[in-house]
Amino acid sequence: MDKLALCEANNVPLTPITFLKRASECYANRTSIIYGKTRFTWHQTYDRCCPLAASLLSLNITRNDVVSIIAPNVPALYEMHFSVPMTGAVLNPINTRLDAKTIAIILRHAQPKILFVDHEFASLTREVLRLLPFHDSQPHPLVILINEFDSTTNPSSKKLDYEGIIQKGKPTPFLLASTFLVRNENDPISLNYTSGTTADPKGVVISHRGAYLSALGSIIGWQMGIFPIYLWTLPMFHCNGWTHTWSVAARGGTNVCMRHLNAQEIYKNIELHGVTHMSCVPTVFRFLLEGGRTDQSHKSQPVQVLTGGSSPPAIILKKIEQLGFKVMHGYGLTEATGPVLFCEWQDEWNRLPENQQMQLKARQGVRSIALGDADVKNTETLESVPRDGKTMGEIVIKGSNLMIGYLKNPKATSEAFKDGWLNTGDIGVIHPDGHVEIKDRSKDIIISGGENISSIEVEKVLYMHPKVLEAAVVAMPHPLWGETPCAFVVLKKSEEELVTNEGGLIKYCRDNMPHFMCPRKVVFFQDLPKNSNGKILKSKLRDNANALVVKEDDPGSKKVHRENVKHVRSKL
Amino acid sequence: MDKLALCEANNVPLTPITFLKRASECYANRTSIIYGKTRFTWHQTYDRCCPLAASLLSLNITRNDVVSIIAPNVPALYEMHFSVPMTGAVLNPINTRLDAKTIAIILRHAQPKILFVDHEFASLTREVLRLLPFHDSQPHPLVILINEFDSTTNPSSKKLDYEGIIQKGKPTPFLLASTFLVRNENDPISLNYTSGTTADPKGVVISHRGAYLSALGSIIGWQMGIFPIYLWTLPMFHCNGWTHTWSVAARGGTNVCMRHLNAQEIYKNIELHGVTHMSCVPTVFRFLLEGGRTDQSHKSQPVQVLTGGSSPPAIILKKIEQLGFKVMHGYGLTEATGPVLFCEWQDEWNRLPENQQMQLKARQGVRSIALGDADVKNTETLESVPRDGKTMGEIVIKGSNLMIGYLKNPKATSEAFKDGWLNTGDIGVIHPDGHVEIKDRSKDIIISGGENISSIEVEKVLYMHPKVLEAAVVAMPHPLWGETPCAFVVLKKSEEELVTNEGGLIKYCRDNMPHFMCPRKVVFFQDLPKNSNGKILKSKLRDNANALVVKEDDPGSKKVHRENVKHVRSKL
Repeated sequence: MDKLALCEANNVPLTPITFLKRASECYANRTSIIYGKTRFTWHQTYDRCCPLAASLLSLNITRNDVVSIIAPNVPALYEMHFSVPMTGAVLNPINTRLDAKTIAIILRHAQPKILFVDHEFASLTREVLRLLPFHDSQPHPLVILINEFDSTTNPSSKKLDYEGIIQKGKPTPFLLASTFLVRNENDPISLNYTSGTTADPKGVVISHRGAYLSALGSIIGWQMGIFPIYLWTLPMFHCNGWTHTWSVAARGGTNVCMRHLNAQEIYKNIELHGVTHMSCVPTVFRFLLEGGRTDQSHKSQPVQVLTGGSSPPAIILKKIEQLGFKVMHGYGLTEATGPVLFCEWQDEWNRLPENQQMQLKARQGVRSIALGDADVKNTETLESVPRDGKTMGEIVIKGSNLMIGYLKNPKATSEAFKDGWLNTGDIGVIHPDGHVEIKDRSKDIIISGGENISSIEVEKVLYMHPKVLEAAVVAMPHPLWGETPCAFVVLKKSEEELVTNEGGLIKYCRDNMPHFMCPRKVVFFQDLPKNSNGKILKSKLRDNANALVVKEDDPGSKKVHRENVKHVRSKL
Repeated sequence: MDKLALCEANNVPLTPITFLKRASECYANRTSIIYGKTRFTWHQTYDRCCPLAASLLSLNITRNDVVSIIAPNVPALYEMHFSVPMTGAVLNPINTRLDAKTIAIILRHAQPKILFVDHEFASLTREVLRLLPFHDSQPHPLVILINEFDSTTNPSSKKLDYEGIIQKGKPTPFLLASTFLVRNENDPISLNYTSGTTADPKGVVISHRGAYLSALGSIIGWQMGIFPIYLWTLPMFHCNGWTHTWSVAARGGTNVCMRHLNAQEIYKNIELHGVTHMSCVPTVFRFLLEGGRTDQSHKSQPVQVLTGGSSPPAIILKKIEQLGFKVMHGYGLTEATGPVLFCEWQDEWNRLPENQQMQLKARQGVRSIALGDADVKNTETLESVPRDGKTMGEIVIKGSNLMIGYLKNPKATSEAFKDGWLNTGDIGVIHPDGHVEIKDRSKDIIISGGENISSIEVEKVLYMHPKVLEAAVVAMPHPLWGETPCAFVVLKKSEEELVTNEGGLIKYCRDNMPHFMCPRKVVFFQDLPKNSNGKILKSKLRDNANALVVKEDDPGSKKVHRENVKHVRSKL
C-alpha cells in the first residue's frame, strides 16, 4: 500500500474555482448572471473571468497578494470570486456599509496591491485613501473603477476600468488549460474582515479547500437542487455570500444581482426571474414583512430562504412563510467559511401544530457534512452537555472548512483554536433529536441570581406580542440579583389601534415566562442600533442599560459582584 | 499569509467514516438498516461499529492491513465499510459471484489478515482456502463467520463469529472520541478488485479522501435528498455500492438490505418500506421488466434509480419508468471511486417528445463536482474533440476522488495514469449541451471500411425491436471491410406471436440505420455470456464471431488488415 504515490491525475487541489470551468463546459448556454438588463451565460462568465485573471497577472499580481474590492452585489464582485483566486491571489471583499475610517483600517492591515471600486463608492474611496499612510514600504493600492455596463466609457482613456482590463486580458493557453494556478489547496482564497464592534476588525483567512468543502456542504445541507435561480439579497462581501458565490456555479444556477436592497426590488426580481433561492440575515425579513405583499401561501413553489445570524423568532418565520417563502434556519460564522449548521426538516414534523413547527424551524439544526465534528461543551469541564435541550454550553466545531486563521493576529487565532476546536463563543443546547439551538452569544447571557437567562428566549416571547416589531434584551446591573434583563423594543407602526406601554409589556412577559426571566425595564426605541451587517449592537444597548439603573451599591461591592458573574460565566 | 499554520481544529482528514458518528448524533433514532425482521437505528449502528473496530484492533489489525469479506448485501458488509477503515485498515469486499479459483487469486494478491465470510459462502471459502498456498511468509487469514441474526449461536463456542466479536469489543475512549485512527486522508480505505475478463483481476486502491469526495459528488449529482430509503439492489462489493454505503449515512437514510436479488423481493421491499432510491446495473432492469408488475406511471413518487455500466437503450428506460421508476443514467469506474458523470435533467426537456427524452436520458451526462476535470480527447493528438455530438474520442478524467493506483501493479497504474489524466478506455462524444455520451469501450468499436461503428448504436436499434430482449454486437472479420458487425440476440419468450429470424432482423436493421452499420450476421442465444457483475462478455462473443466466418483471405493479407485497424483505432 505504501508504494502507491499520488500523481497529477489523482491529486487535484480542492478549490471552488474548478466550478467555473465545469459550468462553462457543462452548462455553457445557461444564464449565469442577470443584472438589470445585463445577462451572461456560463460560457460568457468564464470568457470574462479568464482574461480578467490574465490582466491581473500582467499587473504583477502573484500568489498570496491581496486584491480588495468595494462593491455591492454587481457582476464584477461575482466574477472576482473566481478571477482573483485563479491567479493565486487572495480576494478581499469589503463591506460597503463601513465608514471611511474603518475601511482605511482594513486596507492598512490587508495591504492590497489592487483595489477595485464600484463607481457608487468612488468618493468614499477618495476619503479612504486620504486616511491611508503613503510611503515606499506601503504604497497605495492601484485603484480600478468598476463602471456601470451601460455607461459610455471613453476607449482612448488611459484610466484603467474594470471592463477595460477584461478587454486587455490575454489568457495564456496554460491559464485556460489549468484554469487556475493554485498548487496547494490550503492556500488562502479570501480574506474577510469580521464586523468587530469593539476592537478593530479581524481578517479571517479562508482556504481554497475550506471554500470548496463549505460550498458542497451548503449545497447538501440546504438541499440546493440543480439550476437554482438565486437572488442576491445577501451581500457577497458577507463571508463570500455564505459561499453561495461558488455553490451557484457548482449547481449551474443563475445569479440575480441587485445593486440596492429593498422590498420592491426583491419582489420584482422574484416575479420577473422565477427566483427559487435566496439567503439573507433576519433583518431582511423586516423589509419583506413591510413590503406590502399579500398572502402567497397558496403558491406551490415558495422561494427557498436560508437565513442565519440571530435566531428569527417563530412568529416572524410564520409570517414570512405566508408571503411565499420557505425558510431554512442555519448557523454559520465567517471563521467557519459560512454555514455549518442546517435545520434539516423532518417530514414527520409536518403533522405537528403550526406553532410547534415554527419553534422547530427556529433551531439552528444539525451539522454540515463539511465539518469534521461539532459539539456543545461545558466550557469548564470541556465535557459534552447532555442532549436534553436544556443544559447550555459553548458550541465548538472542527473541520477542514474552517478558516486558516486571523491575518497577522496569532493571539486571536490561538484563542479561537484551543483544545483542538474552534470555540464559537455561542451558547447553545442540544435537543434529544440532535438539533442544536443557540441560546445566546456567550457575552449576551444574563446571569440573574445565579440563573442563566438566554436573552434570545426573552426576545422570542416579546416577538410574540402583536405590537412588537423588534426587540433586544441585554443585562442591566441589579443590586440584589447581579444582573437582570432589560428590553429595548421597537413597536409596529401599522397596528396603531394597539396601545402598549412599559407596564403592559412587563405584565405580558410575566404572563408568558418564568418571573426571573422577565425584563424589569422596557425602553422604547424608534430604531435599534445595528452594525453594518444589520446585527443589533447589544454592546451599545448594554451601555444604555448601565446608564439606566440607580446605582444603589457602592463601587466595592459592585466589583465583587462582577467577579462573581465572571466566575459563573466560565462555568457555562 | 505564509505565517498561518494549520492546527488540529482546521486540518481534519476527509473521510466518509465521519458520516457515521455524525449520523449517530444528528439522526440517532432514525432507522439505519432494515434487513428482514432486523432493524437498527443510526445510534445502534454506531454502537455496533465501534466495538467491532475495537475488536479488530485487539486482533492486531493495524494501519494498511487488509480485511477481506465475502458476503451479500447483509448488515455486516455495510457495518464493515465503517469499522474496518476506523482502525486504519483497508476493506476488501469480494464479489460473491466469483469462483473459488478467482477468489484464491485475489486473496493471494491482497494478503488479508482477516477474512469475514457470510455463512452462505462457508463451503466456497473452504474450497478457496484449499487453493491458497500456506507457509510462514503468507499464513492463511483468520476466518470469521457471519451468521444470520436469528441463528442460535452457542455462546460458549470458542469459534469466533461476527456477532461474537462485536460483543467482545471494548472501544477505548480515544477511539470513541476520535471515531477513527485515520491520520492521512490519502491513506487507503478500500481495495476493490475489478472484474477482469482476460487477465487476473486488478486491485483498485481507493483513498479516504477519494471516498469522501465521491460520496458527496454522488449526493449532489444524483440529487439524493435527506432521509432516502435506499434499497440495496446493487452489490455493496461492487465499488462499495458506488460509494452509496457512505452517502446513505451522510443523508441519514435507511439501508434496506436484501440477501437475494429478484423481482419479487425488490417489489416487496419497495412497497413495504416506501423505498425512494436504488442503484443498479442495467441487468436488473431485465428482472424488473419480467417481474409481472403493472403500469405504475400514475404514481407521483417513483423510485429514483441511478444506473450505470453499459448504456441502457432508450426503449428499456421508457418501459422501466412506466413501472414506477425514475431513471438517472450515470457513468463510473471502480478506478474513479464510483460515478463521475450524471445525466442531470433539464426541465426544458420535459417538453420534448417522449422518445427524444429517453434518448437524452440514455446519455451519461455531465461530470461530478468531485472531479477536478473531465474531457473527451483524440487519443493521438490529445486534443479535445469538438462538442458536436459526433466526433469520438477517449473519455479522460482527473480528480482527487480517483483511485490511488492498482495494488502491486505499477505498470498498470502508470498505463492508466498517463499525460496527467486517468484514461478510461471508453470512447465517447460531447454533445453541444456539454453532455457526454459513451459510444463504446475502446476495444468494442467496430471498424468497417475505415468507418467507426459504435456497437452500442447498433444494439440500441436492435432493442427497439419488439421481439428483442437482449442484444450484443461485436466485430466479425470481413475480407472486404476488415470488420463488420455481428449481432448476438436473446428473444423474448412472452411475445410468442411475433416471429422473427436472422433475415427479418437484418432487414429491420437496414430499415433503421445506415447500411454500413448493419449486422451481416445475427446469432440467436438463450442467454448471453456475462461476467460476475452481469456485464456481457463481448470478448467471448468475439471468439464466437471469429469462428463463424469463412476465412476468404490468406493470413498475410489479414495481418496487414489488423495493423490497419490498430492504426485507425489509435487515431480515435
